[in-house]
Amino acid sequence: MAAEPIPGPYLLYLGHATDFLGIKTSRGLAVFAPERCVGEWRHDDCPLTTGLERLTIEEAVARGARTLVLGIANPGGRMDAAIVADTVAAARAGLNVAAGLHQRLRDQPELDEAARAAGVRLFDVRDAPADLDVGTGLKRAGRRLLTVGTDCSSGKMVSTLILARAMAARGHAAEFRATGQTGILIAGGGIAVDAVVADFISGAVERLSPARGDGGWDLIEGQGSLFHPSFAGVSMGLIHGAQPDALVLCHEVGRTHLRGLPHMPVPDLAECLAANLAAARLTAPDVRAVGVCLNTASLDEPAARAACHAAASLLGVPATDPMRFGAVPIVEEIERCFAD
Amino acid sequence: MAAEPIPGPYLLYLGHATDFLGIKTSRGLAVFAPERCVGEWRHDDCPLTTGLERLTIEEAVARGARTLVLGIANPGGRMDAAIVADTVAAARAGLNVAAGLHQRLRDQPELDEAARAAGVRLFDVRDAPADLDVGTGLKRAGRRLLTVGTDCSSGKMVSTLILARAMAARGHAAEFRATGQTGILIAGGGIAVDAVVADFISGAVERLSPARGDGGWDLIEGQGSLFHPSFAGVSMGLIHGAQPDALVLCHEVGRTHLRGLPHMPVPDLAECLAANLAAARLTAPDVRAVGVCLNTASLDEPAARAACHAAASLLGVPATDPMRFGAVPIVEEIERCFAD
Repeated sequence: MAAEPIPGPYLLYLGHATDFLGIKTSRGLAVFAPERCVGEWRHDDCPLTTGLERLTIEEAVARGARTLVLGIANPGGRMDAAIVADTVAAARAGLNVAAGLHQRLRDQPELDEAARAAGVRLFDVRDAPADLDVGTGLKRAGRRLLTVGTDCSSGKMVSTLILARAMAARGHAAEFRATGQTGILIAGGGIAVDAVVADFISGAVERLSPARGDGGWDLIEGQGSLFHPSFAGVSMGLIHGAQPDALVLCHEVGRTHLRGLPHMPVPDLAECLAANLAAARLTAPDVRAVGVCLNTASLDEPAARAACHAAASLLGVPATDPMRFGAVPIVEEIERCFAD
Repeated sequence: MAAEPIPGPYLLYLGHATDFLGIKTSRGLAVFAPERCVGEWRHDDCPLTTGLERLTIEEAVARGARTLVLGIANPGGRMDAAIVADTVAAARAGLNVAAGLHQRLRDQPELDEAARAAGVRLFDVRDAPADLDVGTGLKRAGRRLLTVGTDCSSGKMVSTLILARAMAARGHAAEFRATGQTGILIAGGGIAVDAVVADFISGAVERLSPARGDGGWDLIEGQGSLFHPSFAGVSMGLIHGAQPDALVLCHEVGRTHLRGLPHMPVPDLAECLAANLAAARLTAPDVRAVGVCLNTASLDEPAARAACHAAASLLGVPATDPMRFGAVPIVEEIERCFAD
């Protein structure tokens, strides 16, 4: 958890990225916190964009940028030599550097030295609180919604953010609880649950979303997938720690295999939802599904509407693409299910 | 993973422990590596024993002890002031200190200073390899058996060790793969999977049990339980990383609630086995159950035999108490199921 605020505005780093899913931190900031971003920095071989203006380091500094955000998320969270060199250049130009990689910025000697020499700071967003406890599963006050997914990078953060805004817009007390680097940078706080010591996954989520007595909701960002062989442990601990009253299943339409694993098919939606509900019942016996959030970016609008209709029919809950059609049908379902 | 061997013989530390389950590391070493233990050190208020001779530090040193092993496993793995004071006294008396707690020995300033002054070493068994990768779920060569449990401390390590010895005794190449502090101290190596960064749980197990081409078996020690809200994330990642051909379910007869969680009942055996098989199928589609290991210490022998018979009838696989009756019925089931 970032112990103190990261100075904005940000310059978003894309570097040499070629994987659209791999720049989700930059994209998330550009969409959900555009007021804190001056632009993006990418090399000529990067075919991707957040839609923000492409700037050099010098241009960004001239426009007031305070921090270079490494808005990339490669599997395993490693920094290669090109990334290190770019962050060193940014530090020398007077920018702080923030990242949520597993490899910590402060552990790169050249970057650490450059930051000290330039008087700028390094923010490792994935640092967990030092004093986490193991989870207890004890029932705590307040309502909680958790997003779960058929895969990594299937829209859980985006869906949670849009749901939180939609609930707030309809007068509900509703807070987004960030569990990943992008969400933490957007929300200004949170715990990167994939970076805590394995014994403390559920305990970290109990810390992140403590008892609340105001009748409001915590909307907790999910991570990974119970069906992803790299990360299902994180997803499982997150589900148990979240103690969710409500689950929302997130899925990218048309994805044929799990991210990074061409030998692993994306699970069936109904099987995936059932497995998540079964896991959640351990700490939340009355948990229920309240919606499906589809990423339909690959479809035209009639096909997207048809995909939502099909998912809703299959699973018996409202389905929407929150980026395209908003999240109101799911908020209405929440209001219906939790009317008391 | 302990990068180098921990000098033996050991003095086993019980301290002020009053929870029999909490001294399982000391008990495990006393039972499975008695040749490396000179005795136990406990205070007058500790009502427990490993069965080894009670010694003072000075007596242990006189008998050749080289290392004090903190054979305790309190939830969360923390050191209190009394433990720190005792380890400092041991270091000053010339003993190395080894522990598998989450809190590292080297992070205790007083102990670190005492160890330096005395020229002895501190071994943090839970330290994970620094270069772990995320798991892939890719099929790898070799046969693997994983123990799973209805709860923590339900006999997974003991069952795995006895199974490994029983398989070796019948001529099978079979190696015990340790995933917890006690197992690592017994085996002389392994990875404490509950101490790795959450994203790397399954990857750690893929590292621990790599492809093997000799037709032999890796018998992988399970951790936690899919039904334990504190630790199920670890169990899930372990299952996916182990890619098990065979599962053995471990259960303590008569336990009424999960360890440390009086509000959480122990799961039903059949439901627990089914959930573990379902989880395992993600990376091992042909996984099968080959046995049940019961801890029947609370029963007399006829009742213990009846409990094994009942579990075998319920689940359709051999059931035994490996400490009491050995593991041969399960090894025979393995030979029958994997006869090719």
